[in-house]
Amino acid sequence: MSLIGDLMNALQILPGVGSKTAQRLTFHLLQKDKQGGKHLAETLLDAIENIVECQYCRTLTEHAVCKICSNTSRSFAQVCVVETPADIIQIEQATDFKGRYFVLHGKLSPIDGVGPKELKLDKLVEILENCEELIIATGSTVEGETTAQYLSHLAEKGGIKATRLAHGVPLGGDLEYIDNSTLAHAFVSRTQL
Amino acid sequence: MSLIGDLMNALQILPGVGSKTAQRLTFHLLQKDKQGGKHLAETLLDAIENIVECQYCRTLTEHAVCKICSNTSRSFAQVCVVETPADIIQIEQATDFKGRYFVLHGKLSPIDGVGPKELKLDKLVEILENCEELIIATGSTVEGETTAQYLSHLAEKGGIKATRLAHGVPLGGDLEYIDNSTLAHAFVSRTQL
Repeated sequence: MSLIGDLMNALQILPGVGSKTAQRLTFHLLQKDKQGGKHLAETLLDAIENIVECQYCRTLTEHAVCKICSNTSRSFAQVCVVETPADIIQIEQATDFKGRYFVLHGKLSPIDGVGPKELKLDKLVEILENCEELIIATGSTVEGETTAQYLSHLAEKGGIKATRLAHGVPLGGDLEYIDNSTLAHAFVSRTQL
Repeated sequence: MSLIGDLMNALQILPGVGSKTAQRLTFHLLQKDKQGGKHLAETLLDAIENIVECQYCRTLTEHAVCKICSNTSRSFAQVCVVETPADIIQIEQATDFKGRYFVLHGKLSPIDGVGPKELKLDKLVEILENCEELIIATGSTVEGETTAQYLSHLAEKGGIKATRLAHGVPLGGDLEYIDNSTLAHAFVSRTQL
């Protein structure tokens, strides 16, 4: 196998990249942007070697404690539970939330053998000691809802208020294109103007 | 800037990868496939450092002379001129061509300041010494056609037969969906059954 063939195969580990795209990427990297390609390879190696989970919130970071957890101006009173580190980036960009996070790295799914132990929820219990509100921001899938249920019970046991992101009509969304369950939920949860 | 942010930026040099895709790729590489990511980075570095142009046909290769040019069973009598190394892969996969190639790494485009000198066509002239047929496989764009015209004059001067890939109805193509120029060309170039 040639080195170019090796590179085409190696690129196919990327999600959504098949043999045609891998070929296009290969020639782009080798002909049009060698410098960018070199920087990409070095950054990738660096990241793979040095990125670990934050020892408090378990997001990905190059330090032992992530930027958010080491930021003393952020409050311990609110903890937002998310499924993935990417969700933190989304919430940080969209909101002015000033509390802490906790990353589950998954969701409860008994059928796949993922229980509270696999998600290491005992670590969450530690964090909840100083917490007043647990904001549950898991996805709205069946597993996400199951996880939310479980987390709200956990909060209840600890005497902590649990909240859940609102469901409803997306901003800019036409009613015509919204699925029935979302619309039904939005209708029931209507708010007074 | 964090290391994760660096990686997201580095990934955006890839064609078609914006900030959202870069984020998805980053978390895929760091969470789901560290080993594949490491292999990708190492292969990419290796390729960028070691891939050069073949000294005869100018395709990309890790050796001084590429596999096709160093294959003594391939004939010098036919030389196929293509725009990019990727075109060679396509032709090798689709046909049983047993001649040599020559990569232009571009096409004549006076408006962009690309003339025969920039394409180093003097190298092609050397190769044409032992050649009987010049197969012109540049693309069917305006610049591709201009280049083909120029190359056929070059062949004519050297007393060599010049041929061009056929234009026409793609296999499996419905006439309904074919553009007028292609259809007109296919109609004029109809062949006897």
